[in-house]
Amino acid sequence: MIIIKIGGGKSINIKGIIKDIADIEESYVIVHGANALRDELAEKLDKPKKVITSISGYSSVFSDEEALDIMMMAYSGLKNKRIVELCQQHGINAVGLSGVDGKAVLGKRNQRIRVKEGEKLRIIRDFSGKPKSINVELLNLLLSNGYVPVLTVPILDENNIAINSENDDIVRLLSKKMGAKTIIQLIEAKGFLENSNEPDSVIKKLDSKELEKKENQVEGRMKRKVLALRKLFENGAAKVIISDGRAENPIKDALAGKGTVIS
Amino acid sequence: MIIIKIGGGKSINIKGIIKDIADIEESYVIVHGANALRDELAEKLDKPKKVITSISGYSSVFSDEEALDIMMMAYSGLKNKRIVELCQQHGINAVGLSGVDGKAVLGKRNQRIRVKEGEKLRIIRDFSGKPKSINVELLNLLLSNGYVPVLTVPILDENNIAINSENDDIVRLLSKKMGAKTIIQLIEAKGFLENSNEPDSVIKKLDSKELEKKENQVEGRMKRKVLALRKLFENGAAKVIISDGRAENPIKDALAGKGTVIS
Repeated sequence: MIIIKIGGGKSINIKGIIKDIADIEESYVIVHGANALRDELAEKLDKPKKVITSISGYSSVFSDEEALDIMMMAYSGLKNKRIVELCQQHGINAVGLSGVDGKAVLGKRNQRIRVKEGEKLRIIRDFSGKPKSINVELLNLLLSNGYVPVLTVPILDENNIAINSENDDIVRLLSKKMGAKTIIQLIEAKGFLENSNEPDSVIKKLDSKELEKKENQVEGRMKRKVLALRKLFENGAAKVIISDGRAENPIKDALAGKGTVIS
Repeated sequence: MIIIKIGGGKSINIKGIIKDIADIEESYVIVHGANALRDELAEKLDKPKKVITSISGYSSVFSDEEALDIMMMAYSGLKNKRIVELCQQHGINAVGLSGVDGKAVLGKRNQRIRVKEGEKLRIIRDFSGKPKSINVELLNLLLSNGYVPVLTVPILDENNIAINSENDDIVRLLSKKMGAKTIIQLIEAKGFLENSNEPDSVIKKLDSKELEKKENQVEGRMKRKVLALRKLFENGAAKVIISDGRAENPIKDALAGKGTVIS
């Protein structure tokens, strides 16, 4: 079982990826993002991203109802259906699913946050949370009948409300529950970079045991990325390939060991 | 087997419909529109509907690639996922599908049309067509495992390209292939009206054999609606209920015989 995670960046070569995927013989599930499309749509609809800062000083994106609407349009609407259409054109009988469909991904909604508005203290709660369970039966039902699940957000919270969630968290839980040994991550970079300012500084190979050390060497967004990788291995992954989703043949490259192979 | 067709009008009471549906014990499939949402989104994105006129004088909506994108956002994105979410909140384990997913609905793309642009004659082709087959196996696979399919456009053409299609045509084909005996249509009117200018002129009962006569009495859009009804019966339907989707309890009303019952 392979999990293929397609990043939602603007320059990701979806056509090349799907063309390559058609040659994979092992069973797989696709998970995709759509952040560039979402941001573009939000801007056109004049609903820019809201960032809030809690009184403890922690900043995060605030997903209100309108943000969820836009997410549904971009992720589970346009992006998901265009990917499924491309799959069909390459002989892959894909079925697009959000986490809401058939309770494919159930989660727990994030707690209320305290924010300051001028002098006032307000307690607010957005539509976001963390995935907690996967409907493995539904995914296996589709797989065993020849369908390829193409999964994206939103997911469903404990009260059956649609919420946003991190794709990294969904991929981690999914790979654990589906027993995926290989995870291919297609991103807008040549691989895992030694130095994020040097696009060619790809780390070719990395031992999964080195991830903890690496985590202590990096900062910010990178730290979170390394932590996400480390958790994949804790959950049973044997190999993670991080490869350039902008290339002509992103998956062929990934399977040929281009990019970063962590095992 | 019941087919529930939810119209895409702005004043349709989706919450009331889904609440009512939860009480239905027979097996059913939901088909929904989203035209009001699509039009609203198209306007916000400054991509108004394009209407073209063929040289033979026939006018039709032209679905270009951007129109398809907007359709995917409105129908299979926002509307579909919000309906599925509502279903989940009422204990219905819904799975949203477009016709593209798992080749749920395959169709044939419409032919090229000749149009005049000033003095020039141009031959153009849009992304629209007619449904020709239903993936009954996929729908039954979901139904027999406790999932309720919630179906909407786009569908897939003979070259695996996503195309727009009339919901009436999809419902007709679906009811035939799934062997649905009852079709409930929830619209923005009290039922099938004797006179479309008089909102209370509901025809309470209609014999399906009278539909042909009716078809010859009406004109324009109404003629097409009656034709669509007549074809439902030709395809094996035993009962069609046309009921007010704006009411507090649209399905309860429909099953209690409010609106128009054709049998």
